[in-house]
Amino acid sequence: MPELRKDPVCGRWVIIATERGKRPSDFKNEVEQRKGGFCPFCSGNESSTPPEILVYRPYPGAPNSPGWTTRVVPNKFPALQIEGDLDKAGEGMYDKMNGIGAHEVIIETPNHDETIPTMPLKRVEDMLWAYRDRILDLRKDNRFKYILIFKNHGAAAGASLEHPHSQLIALPVLPKAVIEEMNGSRRYFDNRERCIFCDMIRQELGAKSRFILENPSFVGFSPYAPRFPFEVWILPKRHIPHFEGCRESEYKLLAEILQELITRMDKVLQGPPYNYFIHNSPLYDDHHNDFYHWHLEIMPRLTKTAGFERGTDFYINPTPPEEASKHLREVELRGPD
Amino acid sequence: MPELRKDPVCGRWVIIATERGKRPSDFKNEVEQRKGGFCPFCSGNESSTPPEILVYRPYPGAPNSPGWTTRVVPNKFPALQIEGDLDKAGEGMYDKMNGIGAHEVIIETPNHDETIPTMPLKRVEDMLWAYRDRILDLRKDNRFKYILIFKNHGAAAGASLEHPHSQLIALPVLPKAVIEEMNGSRRYFDNRERCIFCDMIRQELGAKSRFILENPSFVGFSPYAPRFPFEVWILPKRHIPHFEGCRESEYKLLAEILQELITRMDKVLQGPPYNYFIHNSPLYDDHHNDFYHWHLEIMPRLTKTAGFERGTDFYINPTPPEEASKHLREVELRGPD
Repeated sequence: MPELRKDPVCGRWVIIATERGKRPSDFKNEVEQRKGGFCPFCSGNESSTPPEILVYRPYPGAPNSPGWTTRVVPNKFPALQIEGDLDKAGEGMYDKMNGIGAHEVIIETPNHDETIPTMPLKRVEDMLWAYRDRILDLRKDNRFKYILIFKNHGAAAGASLEHPHSQLIALPVLPKAVIEEMNGSRRYFDNRERCIFCDMIRQELGAKSRFILENPSFVGFSPYAPRFPFEVWILPKRHIPHFEGCRESEYKLLAEILQELITRMDKVLQGPPYNYFIHNSPLYDDHHNDFYHWHLEIMPRLTKTAGFERGTDFYINPTPPEEASKHLREVELRGPD
Repeated sequence: MPELRKDPVCGRWVIIATERGKRPSDFKNEVEQRKGGFCPFCSGNESSTPPEILVYRPYPGAPNSPGWTTRVVPNKFPALQIEGDLDKAGEGMYDKMNGIGAHEVIIETPNHDETIPTMPLKRVEDMLWAYRDRILDLRKDNRFKYILIFKNHGAAAGASLEHPHSQLIALPVLPKAVIEEMNGSRRYFDNRERCIFCDMIRQELGAKSRFILENPSFVGFSPYAPRFPFEVWILPKRHIPHFEGCRESEYKLLAEILQELITRMDKVLQGPPYNYFIHNSPLYDDHHNDFYHWHLEIMPRLTKTAGFERGTDFYINPTPPEEASKHLREVELRGPD
């Protein structure tokens, strides 16, 4: 059973693989991505993954057989285990609990070589629906406090398989980064009776120096203090605390802006590796909080973090967001590469 | 002038290079380390660096000429600028100030191919003395609140030059990671009247399951909740809030334990890339705080962080610290590789 342990000084939880721990020699070639060869996520190879939890098919068909367009399966090598109790305990001055949680893979398409920019828009929309359906299902399990949806694209961004996929991790504790965002936005609301993200949207749509693109429901811009070059956020224009609280019609508009933004990023930065994740309200929160506003953060992987960042959580960003957004705003999407 | 900007939600400061910002095409080959060829840190190439700030020489000699053993120079491409005022200002709802600070390079040896394990012990000790001397000098500048000393070893750990060197960055604000450690350890002290790090040392020296090595003044162990596999901390056994507050005789003992620990790490993990940094009390603090205990954290670079870590500040560590410390404790240092 994996174990959750808490750093007693700064309060950060970590997941420790207490069984099958990696030995020193297991780290060789850690950075290599499996390229070519057999892919467990491709259509026809359904038996190579654990049985599917969710599947979208245009026509009826047997479970775990070809014909699907989007498929969600448990991670074969999960960071957390779904069965069991938390058994919170101390160990001298330290705190721990069992590593209970869900770790799922959203296979975005049956086609190995597609990317978000080249997928049919409907596929991107279905991926977002799969995110939503899984959150709504996992919300029912009251052992969980938070769900992170994230995507690693490219070996340099930590993807160990090439086939387009996102991941979901449900956690029994609130992660430190989420506590900080919740506290910061609650503090802002307490002072001003306004959502900090709603204010940010107003300022960015007004000043336009970091604005990139918008549609009736969403806006994409470079944040004022980005950690990484070409970091970009997408926010719903109206105040929505939870990702799964969007109107049904909004997922298509989200798919449109996400696809276009990554297409622009691919063009400007020649298909960079990237990570994105959705910052959402905690699960136990009702659907009506006034102060937190879900959003999606995209971070291309262009620079390396090192001792300074690890020691301070302070980042050196060599590209001002005003320049990054200008490139992403003005890039010509048609015409030769 | 670089700019410091604050994320309004979570309070994290970032350094934005507002001039000479990197354009999209500048990120190609970002990961390449200059190997072979001309090295600006080698003896004889003193004119390739800005003039030295500090130098140790066994025999008298002209400044910026060969014959030195340890040399400190300003970083040629500093993240922060030493001259100017902070000019704190708002930009709508956001906060910023000028990127004032010091960014220095500690060249640890004139010999390009040495590493901490292969250097004479005296050289490692001198490196630590250089850290101390620079902190004592920069403390006098009351624009600065914090100094981070760190080392990136190997291209995968972010080192852009091969020649052994450490870095120092003096900051006009307290970094988020430091605020969190100060708050956490102050809270612990307020409850118990004991330093949390002193308690940790007692528990680790008692249980021994994460212990690696010790000498009369220092102890090295794997922390209870490490972010990374084979992460190791060195702490002074007695309560010392500031690195520069060690007794003169203690720097040699620190050099010994640091050299031996990295030698063991090199042997167990076959010379991994790594980062280390010193967590110290803030500069404005007097030298007598009861609750914070300086320490050095070493993190080999064996795994990649990706969307999950970026989105949560939650880490998945595939090697329990009890196993990592066992390998580091029991490794045979003599004999064949």
